[in-house]
Amino acid sequence: MLMREKNIPPLLAQEEVSSLLNLPHKRLEEAYWKGIIKNYQKHDIEAIQFRKGLGSVEAGTMVIMGDEIEIIRGFPKIRRTLMLHPALEKHFTGDVAVEEKMNGYNVRIAQIDDTIIAFTRGGYICPYTTRKANEILDMGEFFQEHPEMVICGEMVGTLNPYVSHYYPEIGKLGFRIFDLRKKLTNEPLPVMEKRKLLLDYSLEPVRLLGIFPFKEAPAKIMGIVRDLGANNREGVVMKDPMMQLEPLKYTSSQAQASELEYALSYPFDLAQAFLFSRIIREGFQAHEMAESDDKVRERALRMGESILYPMLETIKRVKNGEVAAEDLVIEVENREEAEEFIRHLRDLKVMATLAEIKDGKAVIRRIHQSTNDKVNNYLQGGLY
Amino acid sequence: MLMREKNIPPLLAQEEVSSLLNLPHKRLEEAYWKGIIKNYQKHDIEAIQFRKGLGSVEAGTMVIMGDEIEIIRGFPKIRRTLMLHPALEKHFTGDVAVEEKMNGYNVRIAQIDDTIIAFTRGGYICPYTTRKANEILDMGEFFQEHPEMVICGEMVGTLNPYVSHYYPEIGKLGFRIFDLRKKLTNEPLPVMEKRKLLLDYSLEPVRLLGIFPFKEAPAKIMGIVRDLGANNREGVVMKDPMMQLEPLKYTSSQAQASELEYALSYPFDLAQAFLFSRIIREGFQAHEMAESDDKVRERALRMGESILYPMLETIKRVKNGEVAAEDLVIEVENREEAEEFIRHLRDLKVMATLAEIKDGKAVIRRIHQSTNDKVNNYLQGGLY
Repeated sequence: MLMREKNIPPLLAQEEVSSLLNLPHKRLEEAYWKGIIKNYQKHDIEAIQFRKGLGSVEAGTMVIMGDEIEIIRGFPKIRRTLMLHPALEKHFTGDVAVEEKMNGYNVRIAQIDDTIIAFTRGGYICPYTTRKANEILDMGEFFQEHPEMVICGEMVGTLNPYVSHYYPEIGKLGFRIFDLRKKLTNEPLPVMEKRKLLLDYSLEPVRLLGIFPFKEAPAKIMGIVRDLGANNREGVVMKDPMMQLEPLKYTSSQAQASELEYALSYPFDLAQAFLFSRIIREGFQAHEMAESDDKVRERALRMGESILYPMLETIKRVKNGEVAAEDLVIEVENREEAEEFIRHLRDLKVMATLAEIKDGKAVIRRIHQSTNDKVNNYLQGGLY
Repeated sequence: MLMREKNIPPLLAQEEVSSLLNLPHKRLEEAYWKGIIKNYQKHDIEAIQFRKGLGSVEAGTMVIMGDEIEIIRGFPKIRRTLMLHPALEKHFTGDVAVEEKMNGYNVRIAQIDDTIIAFTRGGYICPYTTRKANEILDMGEFFQEHPEMVICGEMVGTLNPYVSHYYPEIGKLGFRIFDLRKKLTNEPLPVMEKRKLLLDYSLEPVRLLGIFPFKEAPAKIMGIVRDLGANNREGVVMKDPMMQLEPLKYTSSQAQASELEYALSYPFDLAQAFLFSRIIREGFQAHEMAESDDKVRERALRMGESILYPMLETIKRVKNGEVAAEDLVIEVENREEAEEFIRHLRDLKVMATLAEIKDGKAVIRRIHQSTNDKVNNYLQGGLY
């Protein structure tokens, strides 16, 4: 026990951390031994990372030793409705603000001392995201006047190492903001106040698609989601305009299909976790949309195709001697930036290699090892 | 420890059991405390049931206290090929005997003292199966002359409480034999010897669909499986004619689709376990069959439909106030027989009630509680 005491990260031992997080020191210590909290020392940052939630502190929370102790809370998990109609009636009481949910990756940006840093969902500092966020957004003035704020948004576009998706208005890489939250408390600004403040600093929010009385909202939102889907866009987040109630999310059938497609491209790495929930979403959405027989059949075909085709494609590629891998393209100034990003991926236990650097772009090859090994094994007659 | 010693089933404590199973007494005792082995006292039988495999002893093995100790070994798990061509070349060296795999449930029948008893896969004595097997098959002479044998086969047909499937040649209920194995050792008879012996006693084997040199077998079997599928039949088991090598199985796309259909009818009870493996089978089969674009699309549609339609159907039924349940129909002489079967299902942790008895048939309602509860919850706006 004595030896253990010695090994606790100094930051965790500080009385202030315990009182800021409203968690007894003993509980933090236990969480540290259980791996819920990890020491994080990278990119000249000394911090504590919450790998899982603890009490009311969200997973992804970072406690950072700057000039003073800064706490960037994890982005709260947004729950999903399977049926818009009953869920909205049950959940909301007044108006429902509908913002677009974009298909990229969740980023929190905050100023620590004089540096603007980008954190991905789990609290990791991503060097590529940090660099790109600083290139894309002019946040200097905003953080000078609102150093207590955390900008929460989606990094989207095709030159995107995590979730590459084409948006006509974005192209290669862009950032859209969905929340402004306070450090330490995670308190979000009300929807219109947030949008006003962003406008003042020329920072781009996600699209506001309407504010509806909760009674009308399900029908309106169903129409919106149908249109979004038809344009290959993901879905919506529904918010209490005052941000007193938990937001909810709902996504299009096309979004489900493209997630299935991705998962089934690497079935032995990704599919098991993805498959069931996407399929369940389709069932309830088809039910609520009360589709015609033709529409249901179309949905069934879309589902079947997004399951079967990518699998076939991957089997064929592995058969032809290729590796089951996906190529992520990022913009870099030099080789070192590419290598730094690969090291970051390895910290996340993602196996990746540098395939090519050319014209300021690095091709990072992410290898899906289980898919590769298992498909090879079955192609050689291995038994299931 | 002393108290525990006292509680070991007397049968397990016998030196003979340990030596027959070739497992040290200490290992058996440990397995008993871990729940791998259970005491089984039902239907006037005193036995030990292997809930899981232990050493070389298969799950489903029963050690029975008759006039002497009898050991009915569990039916060995048959492994599956995902790709016929490489798997058969790798696995077999001479001929491959191809027997039909029927879609019913696996039953072992043996004579214990003077009683002919039917065991389901896990080793449970099923009262309905025991009664029906004795009605359908005339096994008296066979067991009189071969008391050391275990008849292994498939109970098939529509009046089937476990896996109801229509076969034109079977109709309501029938039994087809795929193996004759020895008690204690589980040693199977060679394929033709088995078929000859069954013929001598007018006992019906599964269909033999051909014996092929292993080089020709994949192409032949692919054609056979395609035809079986087109007739809504399940697939094949491929055997070394001498039964020295482990048999392998392979199934039709239609079989995969109907299993998906069943699973997705009760998604929160069955789908997670079923989904992934069925989908993987489809991927490799489509690849090996090298289908035309139209055929692949047809397969994708079949998959999508067998996932989406049953889910929609169940959501609609629950919405209309029905319970997510399936009705199993069995033949009974009286109410007591139906109730005995329901008690048997409850031993298997299956929740079932007697819905109706009429004209010698009992309708047993098997309730899928998780599906029922979750679908209701989401229909009422519960969040995912």
